[in-house]
Amino acid sequence: MSRVVAVLGGNAFVTSGQHLTMDGQIQFAHQAMLQLQCLFTDDIELLISHGNGPQVGHILTRVELALGKAYSIPLEVCVAESEGELGYVLELALHNVQARLGKHRPIAALLTRVIVDENDAAFQNPTKPVGVFYSSIQAEELRKQGFAVCEDSGRGFRRVVASPIPREVPELGVIDQLLSMGTIVIAAGGGGIPVVRDGNQIRGVEAVIDKDRTAALMADQLDARLLIILTDVPCAYLNYRSARQTPIPRISPSDANQLIASGHFAPGSMLPKIEAAVQFVNRPGRKAIICDSSSLSKSLLGEAGTTVEYP
Amino acid sequence: MSRVVAVLGGNAFVTSGQHLTMDGQIQFAHQAMLQLQCLFTDDIELLISHGNGPQVGHILTRVELALGKAYSIPLEVCVAESEGELGYVLELALHNVQARLGKHRPIAALLTRVIVDENDAAFQNPTKPVGVFYSSIQAEELRKQGFAVCEDSGRGFRRVVASPIPREVPELGVIDQLLSMGTIVIAAGGGGIPVVRDGNQIRGVEAVIDKDRTAALMADQLDARLLIILTDVPCAYLNYRSARQTPIPRISPSDANQLIASGHFAPGSMLPKIEAAVQFVNRPGRKAIICDSSSLSKSLLGEAGTTVEYP
Repeated sequence: MSRVVAVLGGNAFVTSGQHLTMDGQIQFAHQAMLQLQCLFTDDIELLISHGNGPQVGHILTRVELALGKAYSIPLEVCVAESEGELGYVLELALHNVQARLGKHRPIAALLTRVIVDENDAAFQNPTKPVGVFYSSIQAEELRKQGFAVCEDSGRGFRRVVASPIPREVPELGVIDQLLSMGTIVIAAGGGGIPVVRDGNQIRGVEAVIDKDRTAALMADQLDARLLIILTDVPCAYLNYRSARQTPIPRISPSDANQLIASGHFAPGSMLPKIEAAVQFVNRPGRKAIICDSSSLSKSLLGEAGTTVEYP
Repeated sequence: MSRVVAVLGGNAFVTSGQHLTMDGQIQFAHQAMLQLQCLFTDDIELLISHGNGPQVGHILTRVELALGKAYSIPLEVCVAESEGELGYVLELALHNVQARLGKHRPIAALLTRVIVDENDAAFQNPTKPVGVFYSSIQAEELRKQGFAVCEDSGRGFRRVVASPIPREVPELGVIDQLLSMGTIVIAAGGGGIPVVRDGNQIRGVEAVIDKDRTAALMADQLDARLLIILTDVPCAYLNYRSARQTPIPRISPSDANQLIASGHFAPGSMLPKIEAAVQFVNRPGRKAIICDSSSLSKSLLGEAGTTVEYP
């Protein structure tokens, strides 16, 4: 029995060039699950995780525009709502694709808390953009209200929040048991609901956790054989978006670390994926694949994508 | 090992007379879990369900006020989001109350689909009010847009949606396994996410399912010994809110059915609770209790609340 963790980007629910709609997300999730069908075999224990960037942005917009008419919701509860929304969408897609294939593995979508360290340096230096774009005047208003705001890629201003390192997943024991029983598990959507310890109590905290990091943590602790990081490019590249752009078909963790150290991968884009892959592949016998969902089957055979493994 | 299903009202997260806030809900959920602590013993397999009326109303308000700025969300996805929000709030409360008691049972909050019949008569006659109140002019506008709208208790107009009968919970096998392993499970919040079958496929449907009915269905199929329906009155009454109001401490299913038939209980209030209790107590050895959370301990001893059981 082989244990596999697959993590989808939040953009996996969006048809590129089209507006985000609920029907579109449901259709696109169906397509994505069709492309993952090679993983729905009885000899694979499958954990699926996913991003929530575009969706949590819309949840924040709704909260903001309804202030005074509907109660306000802190960011971690927005993440919890997005786990509800996207967990359901994925369950639907998984059920329907399995049914078309004549398969009926049980599915469980779990709300997932992830414990972070209150003293994580990220809380002093929020860097992760969330939600909509603001004008410079609106940005100044938000700063006065105590929000951290940054200019984002020349497109305007956005709120930025802390992206602390995931330390522990309280639901991991339950996930482990469900996987062992053959259930396909959906967990830690959006990187998980960030909480901190306070003595023996826990409480929510305003942050978003990198979904690839959380997936790598879960894959490591669940002793998976394979971590699949699905994104919207076919693989990692040397000299990405330059004339000398070259695909990386296979790389060792130590070589990947050297490329990371030399600043080869873009922060907020390929960097967290390569880092997550290296974090997981901390011993021989483990493998991480970075690819897009349409090239998953080929990537599993080593004919596409980027594979991180010991030489 | 005794299996117990407890279902909380959506109002269990609201301090009466106060505005709904997220902090308030977290505090109130903590209080509710403290009152349920007699159920956190190792000899009880515990499934907790909950309502979502006030919360899903606020989600609908946010969706409506952000139309054009954030994508629209159909009602069943609003229910899924409310399962995310309230499942997390309950997990937090369960974790923290358990920790104070020195207990550490694992917790799993599951997104829960509930299959309803597309031909359920409820779809021809929507009766369940959802969301905010509208003026008669706004109500007329909504009617023109194809929404069903009704006058609600002299307080204004509200959208009404179908409340079909829950037929099947696809997650039930997973819930059963988790309970058997000692996990405290939170499931079917808001009565569950309504879906219908379409050949071997399933899809969401605009409806809300009565949470007490879904809880009774789960309790029956999981072969629970006890169904606890927590509400904001201490018990069921004969001649409720009249000079002759009399508590019902104990009643058999057949006597309860007679009182139901004679129109004794208020639709949308005590009626669905009594009906759910009778639906579950379909054989000797099973017991349903209707009470408020502050009188739970006494009600378990038969000294408060209303107990439905065979004589």
